[in-house]
Amino acid sequence: MSCSARRAALRALLHGAGVDALLVTDLVNVRYLTGFTGSNAALLVHAGGDGASRFCTDGRYRTQAAAEVPDLETVIERACAVELAKQAAALGVERLGFESDTVSVDAHDALTEAAGIPLVRAPGLVQRLRAVKDAGEVEALRRACAVGDAALAELLEAGGLRPGRTEREVALDLENRMRAHGASAPAFETILAAGPHSAVPHHRPTDTVLQRGDLVKLDFGALVDGYHSDMTRTVVLGSAADWQRELHALVAEAQAAGRAALAPGAEVVAVDAAARGVVERAGRGEEFVHGLGHGVGLQIHEAPYVGQTGTGALSAGMVVTVEPGVYVAGAGGVRIEDTVVVRDSGPELLTHTTRELLEV
Amino acid sequence: MSCSARRAALRALLHGAGVDALLVTDLVNVRYLTGFTGSNAALLVHAGGDGASRFCTDGRYRTQAAAEVPDLETVIERACAVELAKQAAALGVERLGFESDTVSVDAHDALTEAAGIPLVRAPGLVQRLRAVKDAGEVEALRRACAVGDAALAELLEAGGLRPGRTEREVALDLENRMRAHGASAPAFETILAAGPHSAVPHHRPTDTVLQRGDLVKLDFGALVDGYHSDMTRTVVLGSAADWQRELHALVAEAQAAGRAALAPGAEVVAVDAAARGVVERAGRGEEFVHGLGHGVGLQIHEAPYVGQTGTGALSAGMVVTVEPGVYVAGAGGVRIEDTVVVRDSGPELLTHTTRELLEV
Repeated sequence: MSCSARRAALRALLHGAGVDALLVTDLVNVRYLTGFTGSNAALLVHAGGDGASRFCTDGRYRTQAAAEVPDLETVIERACAVELAKQAAALGVERLGFESDTVSVDAHDALTEAAGIPLVRAPGLVQRLRAVKDAGEVEALRRACAVGDAALAELLEAGGLRPGRTEREVALDLENRMRAHGASAPAFETILAAGPHSAVPHHRPTDTVLQRGDLVKLDFGALVDGYHSDMTRTVVLGSAADWQRELHALVAEAQAAGRAALAPGAEVVAVDAAARGVVERAGRGEEFVHGLGHGVGLQIHEAPYVGQTGTGALSAGMVVTVEPGVYVAGAGGVRIEDTVVVRDSGPELLTHTTRELLEV
Repeated sequence: MSCSARRAALRALLHGAGVDALLVTDLVNVRYLTGFTGSNAALLVHAGGDGASRFCTDGRYRTQAAAEVPDLETVIERACAVELAKQAAALGVERLGFESDTVSVDAHDALTEAAGIPLVRAPGLVQRLRAVKDAGEVEALRRACAVGDAALAELLEAGGLRPGRTEREVALDLENRMRAHGASAPAFETILAAGPHSAVPHHRPTDTVLQRGDLVKLDFGALVDGYHSDMTRTVVLGSAADWQRELHALVAEAQAAGRAALAPGAEVVAVDAAARGVVERAGRGEEFVHGLGHGVGLQIHEAPYVGQTGTGALSAGMVVTVEPGVYVAGAGGVRIEDTVVVRDSGPELLTHTTRELLEV
């Protein structure tokens, strides 16, 4: 879907939000609607069409804006949001919507003063569009996930995951392999957690040396064309002990149940419950300390949140992670995570590395 | 300075801000005040001391919080800010400050409802403290800058900057060398801009092949222990043409003037003007399309902003970039940037790579 089509889809939401224009200031939302990838910009989407809409960035990005946003009239000014708020009235805007979920209280004051017309809360409109991926976005996510799969396969084949290396070394090795496969950067700070560290959900790699018998949790992803992949696997160095095998089997069962629950119309709390119930029935609910998953796209965490405090239902085209984990403090933990497209025909996996317990 | 001492320094500002506690929700500010490096947290700093203060994060970070924030009572809850707002009244807080410069309009509503007491705007208090670096922070910045210097020196010695390579290859090479020297990541997306691309201030590396005679602009930095370095150099591949030499000399003169103007008490607009004046007197003011510099620390861009629309004066201990640039559309541009500590005894450079024109 072109950026122009995305702006048209947003326009269709403006009337319902009670506004005749939306001032888009969240930079990721601006990128989604325009293709602009610089670090300072704002966008006024006018219900009357692109002709009355305006894009603003600063002088550093004049050339880039001309290349990336050729189809909108561009204003060059450092204080982008304030400048577009100033211009709104002259563009015939009477009710100017703003992103009240991301605009700060102080910025709201400045915008109100600049606009001279009422500002109307219009939170989450672009996020709602972004939650459902178009075909091009799914392809970008597919490429990003393929990079993660390829890097992990290569790491394992090369014997890169072995006793004697440090968490930090293995994480860097994995990240370099993702870059070699085309990632512009890691999608987030790689989690590489060995032994007892695997019981820390968001452990940061240290100089701890991997030991035979360790559970090793790898949670990582690739950034490709602005889209993020996200995958977790937990392996054992050498032969798995019974408790490791049982823990892995439990999480795998929960993860399969979570994936199976992904369907258009399913409430996110029900999807979370499908996986969590497996863990709870095993008496380990207290050790599953986070939500089941989250949307992924231009941001590593975006709508929808699939957890106990989530709201709403899934739609076809949403791309979410499914990542239950059970963490035994002091001993070790297991998390298994995939990135999945919600489809009418059933969930489509974008991450393909085996979910069987690997003993490496 | 310990985190506890930083919290004490913040406490000293609370009375003047008309509050008896500050709800710190900006994650970088939370890190500065607690040492916590996870991705979800909030902090209530109570004027009455650490005993009445509270730290909050979610279940994923229970172990990490215990290790990083051992000196504050920790609450485990996913909606950190709302949870601490709820607890404020029971802690004796009557006027609860919030970071109105970063808290969104919608979040403000949620906090007000949760608190049940008046919320008071208290923007920028922690940023004001952060702008002046303590000795430990300057050392971290020094290490980060040293990594950048070492990586560039190595790249040049290895002949890594040569005709035939692409912008993307050279950028990746430089980033890998920073990692090998101890960077946990690049401080920001490396700018590597060859030939006409050097006239684009924030150019993103492409597959464009470097050519003999090109101006090549490298703007890059290293992330070390959470602190960011920032340096730009512009070199010529082969012998410089006269126009390239003159452009470089002009920017070098402006940069030296900007550095010389860095002193405690100097207004940021005056520092900008010192450098900009050099460019304007050469009749090229229109081609210097951005501010002179910015503070750097736990964020790559932080207070103070040193530009024409900046406000306030410098203080000893601030660390800022000085980065004038002149960009000739279609031909090429030059930017020279250092990271500098403002000292009573005169500016101290943290980046040491030569500012002479390099012909490589």
